[in-house]
Amino acid sequence: MTAPPKGAKMKIGNTIPGGSGLGDLLTEMRRASPLVQCITNYVAMNIAANVLLAAGASPAMVHAEREAGEFAAIAGALTVNIGTLSPDWVAGMHRAADGANQAGKPWVLDPVAHFATSYRRDTVAGLLALRPAIVRGNASEIIALAGGMSAGQGVDSGDTVASAEASARSLAGRTGAVVAVTGAVDFVTDGKRAVRIEGGSPLMPRVTALGCSLTCLVGAFAAIRPADPFAASIAALAIFAVAGERAGRVSEGPGSFGWRLLDALAALDPAGLEREARISEAVQA
Amino acid sequence: MTAPPKGAKMKIGNTIPGGSGLGDLLTEMRRASPLVQCITNYVAMNIAANVLLAAGASPAMVHAEREAGEFAAIAGALTVNIGTLSPDWVAGMHRAADGANQAGKPWVLDPVAHFATSYRRDTVAGLLALRPAIVRGNASEIIALAGGMSAGQGVDSGDTVASAEASARSLAGRTGAVVAVTGAVDFVTDGKRAVRIEGGSPLMPRVTALGCSLTCLVGAFAAIRPADPFAASIAALAIFAVAGERAGRVSEGPGSFGWRLLDALAALDPAGLEREARISEAVQA
Amino acid sequence: MTAPPKGAKMKIGNTIPGGSGLGDLLTEMRRASPLVQCITNYVAMNIAANVLLAAGASPAMVHAEREAGEFAAIAGALTVNIGTLSPDWVAGMHRAADGANQAGKPWVLDPVAHFATSYRRDTVAGLLALRPAIVRGNASEIIALAGGMSAGQGVDSGDTVASAEASARSLAGRTGAVVAVTGAVDFVTDGKRAVRIEGGSPLMPRVTALGCSLTCLVGAFAAIRPADPFAASIAALAIFAVAGERAGRVSEGPGSFGWRLLDALAALDPAGLEREARISEAVQA
Repeated sequence: MTAPPKGAKMKIGNTIPGGSGLGDLLTEMRRASPLVQCITNYVAMNIAANVLLAAGASPAMVHAEREAGEFAAIAGALTVNIGTLSPDWVAGMHRAADGANQAGKPWVLDPVAHFATSYRRDTVAGLLALRPAIVRGNASEIIALAGGMSAGQGVDSGDTVASAEASARSLAGRTGAVVAVTGAVDFVTDGKRAVRIEGGSPLMPRVTALGCSLTCLVGAFAAIRPADPFAASIAALAIFAVAGERAGRVSEGPGSFGWRLLDALAALDPAGLEREARISEAVQA
Repeated sequence: MTAPPKGAKMKIGNTIPGGSGLGDLLTEMRRASPLVQCITNYVAMNIAANVLLAAGASPAMVHAEREAGEFAAIAGALTVNIGTLSPDWVAGMHRAADGANQAGKPWVLDPVAHFATSYRRDTVAGLLALRPAIVRGNASEIIALAGGMSAGQGVDSGDTVASAEASARSLAGRTGAVVAVTGAVDFVTDGKRAVRIEGGSPLMPRVTALGCSLTCLVGAFAAIRPADPFAASIAALAIFAVAGERAGRVSEGPGSFGWRLLDALAALDPAGLEREARISEAVQA
Repeated sequence: MTAPPKGAKMKIGNTIPGGSGLGDLLTEMRRASPLVQCITNYVAMNIAANVLLAAGASPAMVHAEREAGEFAAIAGALTVNIGTLSPDWVAGMHRAADGANQAGKPWVLDPVAHFATSYRRDTVAGLLALRPAIVRGNASEIIALAGGMSAGQGVDSGDTVASAEASARSLAGRTGAVVAVTGAVDFVTDGKRAVRIEGGSPLMPRVTALGCSLTCLVGAFAAIRPADPFAASIAALAIFAVAGERAGRVSEGPGSFGWRLLDALAALDPAGLEREARISEAVQA
């Protein structure tokens, strides 16, 4: 689907950088069933909550200015997605991110189509200043966030993940956040280390809000690994890639893929996950 | 899944307290196809509307302050769910509840995670003062609403229904509302009488917003039995339990359960419903 | 399901008024994958985006007053649906329609239940004054919009499409918009010409927001035929009717129909579309 990724294909396999086995992380997350506060867009609300429930986490969609900060102290992690914006919601996002920071909880930023309008550009700049632990976006979003020229127009990426790798490294270096670029082959970097994750299905971009849902799943792993956002991001992306690949094999189209992905997430066994995950180190070109 | 319910297992079967047969109530609801005004949360909007349509009712999602009260006079019943709150919406909820009260229409309150933040606690107190005919919640929500200490944190219940029975009776006695606690075995009381309803599927808590959707279905039966909220609640819960049990038997996971529940609701026949419903009187311990 | 449509059954078949083949239009739309700005209701958000993605277009849900006008200049077309209203959103709708008009982009109005409350009546009057290229509604909505007495109460139509044909012609004549009335048999008119489109499934009204989703699909074809809203409307409705008919044949209920429609839209081949589409000229009675 895209240009083959550059760099080594050395399989990392079942050990995530940081020392945990991938299957163990899934088991640990399910046991903890972390409460994830998701401020996401109207399109993603339902499917994101269902992705978290299917995987084993506990979603809570709490965004109002009057309660978002208070709730962030209760939740294990926060995710903020700017897909459908309005001033009230942006105020709630700021409160929530402040609350998470004060409580020492990690938060994840999903800068949906931030390059499309001046309102989005302003909003994402304000949120980046609140130091997310992780930024997850598609290639166009990450390229534009790093200051590059992206081919994106709407919410779909017009660029390949491979073309966004340098931007991701640069953005991670500048902000201190782990940057996860998702697409046909995912790329995750903390500015120094980087991995690629293969898997998923060509049906994924045909179903709306799966990227947004993945952001929430990243939050679930950030909640159980608050000190290691790099490992948390890799775990969430690898799980989504394996479940997506399994779902894709038995789906007839985007409609069936939507619910089969949920079934696959719920059925995912730690051993099968480790066997099927394809994580490789990405050596800088 | 939970502690076995206390009290008699005497089957009530096909006669709901109040005198109607369960199958007849389903037939009557489908014939009337009552217009149910649902003020619900963003996560539940779509699935709740689909649950009502599948069961045979007519949903209308109308929440704006400028029209919510006017619409409540047109609708057969109103349901109010505080899952995703904001000041504009709370204003609309008050207008709608006032409008329903003035028009003599029953309304149902779903106090989602009302214990989680001060904003929610304030909101639910204000709404309870507007005298809902029925309150439907999970065990943690009902325990906290009755003034007890619940184990809930987010939107998922941390308590069993059995542990919420005394709270439900107390809340019903204090407010005059019928209280429905849903979980592995449901419990419904008007403060004097009480029943338990068995059925459903362990997959139900793995799909988001099914409780919220059930609240809307309670509204559909409240619309055709405005003077008997106890019977209306039991009918809705029993139908959901039977459809959920049927769907659960043929589902491979939470994704397939979501759509199979809708198919099961639409296919539910009055005779099968009466045969499979498991309603029993709950004698006070 | 409804009274048989009056007028000629002359099959128009694979040539849409305006000269394009139906299959060619589908291919052209998929190749262009037009960016469609959808201001739709909370119930429809997810399914509408999925309908556009499955069919081959690129949805963007952008409604905030601060960005809706700016985005309308980027998008290929705009759709505005008043299903769930609030003042902020109405302001965004106006900005978006103004932006579309200034940029020469077509926009589509979906006047959901506009007769139900005074707030809706005011809102739809304000939007109609901004000259939509196309109005799509159910029979009750179109009858009421043309000044007639409709049998509608909530969001479901209480009237047959056949009974709305004269209203549709009158509304098209008065506003200059193409008017599309959807139901068991659809009717489209520009005030002079008119066609009927057969197909679909009795399950369609049992699934929420499919009409809203169809409005967004009309936007996708308006984006590639901005000068010919009559052809664009017919193409979108015919595609939905064929995909709906295919999905209906293999569905067990409204739950399965929901995802099978998406699969059918994605799998729709131009040749099969032309073979199965049933478009006929509607001669004025």
